[in-house]
Amino acid sequence: MTPPATPPPGDDALTLDRAHVFHSWSAQGALAPLTIAGGLGCEVWDDAGRRYLDFSSQLVNINIGHQHPRVVAAITEQAGLLTTIAPGHAHLARGRAAQRITQHAPDGMNKVFFTNGGADANENAIRMARLHTGRDKIVSGYRSYHGNTGAAVVATGDWRRVPNEYASGHVHAFTPYLYRSDFWAQDEAQECERALAHLHRVLQCEGPSSVAAILLETIPGTAGVLTPPPGYLAGVRELADRYGILIILDEVMVGFGRTGQWFAFDGFDVRPDLVSFAKGVNSGYVPAGGVIISDEIAATFDERVFPGGLTYSGHPLAMAAIVGTLDAMADEGIVENARRVGAEAIGPGLAALAEKHPSIGEVRGLGVFWALELVRDRETREPVSPQSMVIVRDGCLARGLLPFTADNRIHVVPPCVVTTDEVATALAVYDEVLTTLEESL
Amino acid sequence: MTPPATPPPGDDALTLDRAHVFHSWSAQGALAPLTIAGGLGCEVWDDAGRRYLDFSSQLVNINIGHQHPRVVAAITEQAGLLTTIAPGHAHLARGRAAQRITQHAPDGMNKVFFTNGGADANENAIRMARLHTGRDKIVSGYRSYHGNTGAAVVATGDWRRVPNEYASGHVHAFTPYLYRSDFWAQDEAQECERALAHLHRVLQCEGPSSVAAILLETIPGTAGVLTPPPGYLAGVRELADRYGILIILDEVMVGFGRTGQWFAFDGFDVRPDLVSFAKGVNSGYVPAGGVIISDEIAATFDERVFPGGLTYSGHPLAMAAIVGTLDAMADEGIVENARRVGAEAIGPGLAALAEKHPSIGEVRGLGVFWALELVRDRETREPVSPQSMVIVRDGCLARGLLPFTADNRIHVVPPCVVTTDEVATALAVYDEVLTTLEESL
Repeated sequence: MTPPATPPPGDDALTLDRAHVFHSWSAQGALAPLTIAGGLGCEVWDDAGRRYLDFSSQLVNINIGHQHPRVVAAITEQAGLLTTIAPGHAHLARGRAAQRITQHAPDGMNKVFFTNGGADANENAIRMARLHTGRDKIVSGYRSYHGNTGAAVVATGDWRRVPNEYASGHVHAFTPYLYRSDFWAQDEAQECERALAHLHRVLQCEGPSSVAAILLETIPGTAGVLTPPPGYLAGVRELADRYGILIILDEVMVGFGRTGQWFAFDGFDVRPDLVSFAKGVNSGYVPAGGVIISDEIAATFDERVFPGGLTYSGHPLAMAAIVGTLDAMADEGIVENARRVGAEAIGPGLAALAEKHPSIGEVRGLGVFWALELVRDRETREPVSPQSMVIVRDGCLARGLLPFTADNRIHVVPPCVVTTDEVATALAVYDEVLTTLEESL
Repeated sequence: MTPPATPPPGDDALTLDRAHVFHSWSAQGALAPLTIAGGLGCEVWDDAGRRYLDFSSQLVNINIGHQHPRVVAAITEQAGLLTTIAPGHAHLARGRAAQRITQHAPDGMNKVFFTNGGADANENAIRMARLHTGRDKIVSGYRSYHGNTGAAVVATGDWRRVPNEYASGHVHAFTPYLYRSDFWAQDEAQECERALAHLHRVLQCEGPSSVAAILLETIPGTAGVLTPPPGYLAGVRELADRYGILIILDEVMVGFGRTGQWFAFDGFDVRPDLVSFAKGVNSGYVPAGGVIISDEIAATFDERVFPGGLTYSGHPLAMAAIVGTLDAMADEGIVENARRVGAEAIGPGLAALAEKHPSIGEVRGLGVFWALELVRDRETREPVSPQSMVIVRDGCLARGLLPFTADNRIHVVPPCVVTTDEVATALAVYDEVLTTLEESL
């Protein structure tokens, strides 16, 4: 696994990228992307062989680490057999992938509709909820991201929704985030109680019988690793049941090991009706996503045509990668590793950093899913500036760490296979970088 | 390339499929999918080793045929190097894929935004058109399919739109289809002239300055291989230019060889502003799609953030499959093969069938993209019933041919690598099946 030879002039990653590749969520003019040539485990390297410790998991999707040999082998084997087949046909890898996924899902959720990623997983979960209930509205959180396509981007709460509001039937509510409470709450119990009261008021005012589903990331991710307080998700379930509303849990970022559980909702007292997933299910080695469907909702479409579908639904190569990933994760105790390293190394390590660094306003998270909230002032909780975050990002990169930053936060989100040694290395980098940051403030 | 061994009880494709897989565009209860275990070229085979000649190209996407060795090798090689990386980084395979695609595109279209498939390609093309023009409305055809997600499914014209109308800013118009004219036209020239007059009236009545783009499949595919009459697309361009409206050509089904051209629009006098693609770009070996962007539209986002993106944009494994596919297609003359076999074998063969079979109302198409319109009566043009189409489909399958059927039509859509011998085999099957059909009428 050595870095590849330098390509001939003009045929290099950066030249071709700047000439021909249009990038996501960016102004294109001034982009200077890092070139990444290869990776293994928690490391990636660029075209010159310079190595980085990947504490981003890219877009929080490489749960099993880069280039896990069993997943690569599963892809290679399936590539030799049959790369793709239409979704209307049955194929062994597809059946096995669905079986593996439902084995980890709650009882009474036995069917999977496969998509290409998280956005269309949410699109189809929303579609199922509307058709099953005969209702139109989807209630989601302002602090959320659900994907880039028509309905998913309007279900999204953050700035990415605003230029894209061409879908109807979406309502947003505020959700728990004690550190920056939208409910003037003083403690977790109050935040929970008030968030539920607020959600109840939104449902009442929208007309509960017009609401098909409440769509929530089990733990809102890009919005800041916002672990809900104890009782919140159980309270949402209670409200949903009272009004015949479904719950869609978006496990695109948090599913398949990220929180040290197979599903993040395994750590809460809540039963979903539909679960959307992508990313961790095969660590994105081949694009795939999907919806896990309750038996009751699946039965709605036994006689009635489900009006949704796509060419690559249940794509054999993606399915083989799912089987390879989930089997390796189970056999190698990768979910347990994420839980243990989170509890024993990342959590205590970040807490120690917070003791030392006044720029850390809050540490929160679990498993391999943590956020450091960086502030100019612990009292006012004023976020550090975008310029400060450039210092953080550049400082990490200069020290060989690939960070994940969002707004005023560092998200500490390594692969689930991360070791305590790698955590120690990363903590030392964060420590130095935060010192530099504080000197600049 | 032999069929695989029979899997152990319970671990077979059909059992797992019926237990756990939720299918596209279907009522789930009575499904009896064909199991497909493997394929090569224009053939696929089931778990028992029974072989089928694939004249569906699955969902009209396997342009290069099944398991082309150069594409499989490209996937295997990239899988060993780096399966995936976040879209924000630069990676050689991604740059090369974008370069290869733009080399086949018109001058002045030098950038590619990659997506997971055709639906989100159209979503993002629509988004670019709206932001570039500052206008909201998208005009598309009633006889069209543009994908399954929020905006794409509402841009769609056919029945799949109706249960999914949750997107705003969409207007539909009628488009040319002389055989079942919506304009009471008697010949192609009249159909063209009236279709343009109708489109002009729709633009006038919607307010041309509110229209961002006209979105058209260059040749509407699932709607029936509806080749536009000479002059139609040039006329659309003229109308668009008059009012500052963009043209998005949806080449998801027709691009990359299907019509015997690299792009279907290469056969027409029209310049698109945005081109959406998927399917044929890598024959679906790894899920991928995208938008080819005019330099003028790309420049809009040099300083301004493009508000769209996705985790698997420019996925290395998918990109390697694109490079492998397009290089093999160029080196092996696969596009030229599609053109030649269409002109020399499929076209004349279907015309001969139409001479013999009164159930064929019309034959139309080019390259490896043809439709037979099946009718109860050539005078009234009354379509054959759904039950008749079951006879057609089952008759083909029983004779070892995997057909593509839609409404009252057989779409004759083999891979671009199809040989004249394979065409002869398929024509003999269609001939027998149409005889059976006619006996049943």
